[in-house]
Amino acid sequence: MRFIRSVSEMQKISSALRRQGKTIGFVPTMGALHEGHLSLIKQARKDNQITVVSIFVNPIQFGPNEDFKRYPRPIKKDISFCKKEKVDFIFYPQVGKMYPEGFKTMVEVGEMGNVLCGLTRPGHFRGVATVVFKLFNIVQPDIAYFGQKDAQQTVIIKRMVVDLNLGVKIKVMPIMREKSGLALSSRNSYLSAQERSDALVLSGSLDLARNLIRKGQRSCRKIIGQMKSLINANPSVRIDYVDIVDLDTLKPLEKIRGKCLIALAARIGKTRLIDNIIVQRRKVGDSPYFFV
Amino acid sequence: MRFIRSVSEMQKISSALRRQGKTIGFVPTMGALHEGHLSLIKQARKDNQITVVSIFVNPIQFGPNEDFKRYPRPIKKDISFCKKEKVDFIFYPQVGKMYPEGFKTMVEVGEMGNVLCGLTRPGHFRGVATVVFKLFNIVQPDIAYFGQKDAQQTVIIKRMVVDLNLGVKIKVMPIMREKSGLALSSRNSYLSAQERSDALVLSGSLDLARNLIRKGQRSCRKIIGQMKSLINANPSVRIDYVDIVDLDTLKPLEKIRGKCLIALAARIGKTRLIDNIIVQRRKVGDSPYFFV
Repeated sequence: MRFIRSVSEMQKISSALRRQGKTIGFVPTMGALHEGHLSLIKQARKDNQITVVSIFVNPIQFGPNEDFKRYPRPIKKDISFCKKEKVDFIFYPQVGKMYPEGFKTMVEVGEMGNVLCGLTRPGHFRGVATVVFKLFNIVQPDIAYFGQKDAQQTVIIKRMVVDLNLGVKIKVMPIMREKSGLALSSRNSYLSAQERSDALVLSGSLDLARNLIRKGQRSCRKIIGQMKSLINANPSVRIDYVDIVDLDTLKPLEKIRGKCLIALAARIGKTRLIDNIIVQRRKVGDSPYFFV
Repeated sequence: MRFIRSVSEMQKISSALRRQGKTIGFVPTMGALHEGHLSLIKQARKDNQITVVSIFVNPIQFGPNEDFKRYPRPIKKDISFCKKEKVDFIFYPQVGKMYPEGFKTMVEVGEMGNVLCGLTRPGHFRGVATVVFKLFNIVQPDIAYFGQKDAQQTVIIKRMVVDLNLGVKIKVMPIMREKSGLALSSRNSYLSAQERSDALVLSGSLDLARNLIRKGQRSCRKIIGQMKSLINANPSVRIDYVDIVDLDTLKPLEKIRGKCLIALAARIGKTRLIDNIIVQRRKVGDSPYFFV
């Protein structure tokens, strides 16, 4: 495994690999790697000849009062993690090299960046799109891997790839959860034992939504209402949003139809957590089509 | 010479050429080709194994009251022009294929897009950066060629290439002028004989500025003042702006120093024309350093 800090060196290596006809799988991360990242790395290794993992806590996607400074950076642990998984390259650039003096150009994602998490994190998805885009140009992957946990991010990046004619394929891997149901997140390390227990109401509310839909409920307003009631029953959890939107456009839905993204964000103490599920009509066994 | 309309076909051809180790020179144009474009094409042919010219009147860089509809589109003439110059590929995409339904992602260029031409053309440089960027991803050039006439565009695109880690080199070729001094432009075709004569005051004012600087004038305010007086002496020419800015940052200068861009835009009848010169200290022969 090689550990690359220099932007230009990474770009040269990737160009050389591509000239040799090697396929490159890319897992962009902010480090603090967990089993969620692992599933991306394993898939990248399976699909490609070369696997590159980037570790970069991207300042331009954090708001002024967000957790950029305290975001976990266990770089030694992350390196061992990648080594064990036979990652070929870790790309670990410095902030000043990614955003040198005079940096100005941003990738704007339009209204899809202003809904859901964008409501309380203005500029977040512009920061995400810009860094992912820069990383794509540096690493030059054939396929890039993202987790479904950051659902809005995956939708926006897929849109960006189409809109800007990027020649990279996007693969989205399912959310990994603890047995309790809690979605894996680098930010879970912020949680106290009590908060960790409080947080279970989030995945619980998504289970509730799925069950309501399976029982025939189609009104998004009613489903969201019941989810909010469940979450609000725990006074230490403050909802940022609970929403049901079209998976491709992120536009709010009135009725459950097509592919729906049910997404939420909430604060528990100082920690902001997100979670989501996708529901869509699928034929299960011999039974008629179900939303699952 | 091959004539390509399909975005995906062009992208495939370029990928294949790059895999073969061929160097690609790219001249992005809006068509209505003239001697200015010719100098770009000639340079591209000289520097690269393959030359691609794109012809695309890009709707998203035109404002609602601008000349998108009436912009000249002499495609047959342009094809002969390229054939004669031994261009390898003309890429001539359709608007609906470049901006399919649901298109949202834009490349934002920051404050550099809000000065000079950006003052009266809000969103223009976002549109330019976005299309150039898309074309780069489709054509995948080693070197792309732009004319100094669109000075602000060249500065913004150079900035974008650095900021977004694009692996393309930008070459800027000098402005081509008629003997009269009028800068070549596809929009000159809009001018009547009288307007064409009126337009000469624009390059005239730039000559004036250069002469003032050669004589030792260093105050930008005074130079701009004299240029405006000269232009305003012709009542059929309406100034959009006359400005002197730093060539790298486009920030206004008080004193002539470093590399200065002296740029202007003006309306003559319904036609908006731009022109500029760069002045910088250079040693000329045995004489001391001059601004030229």
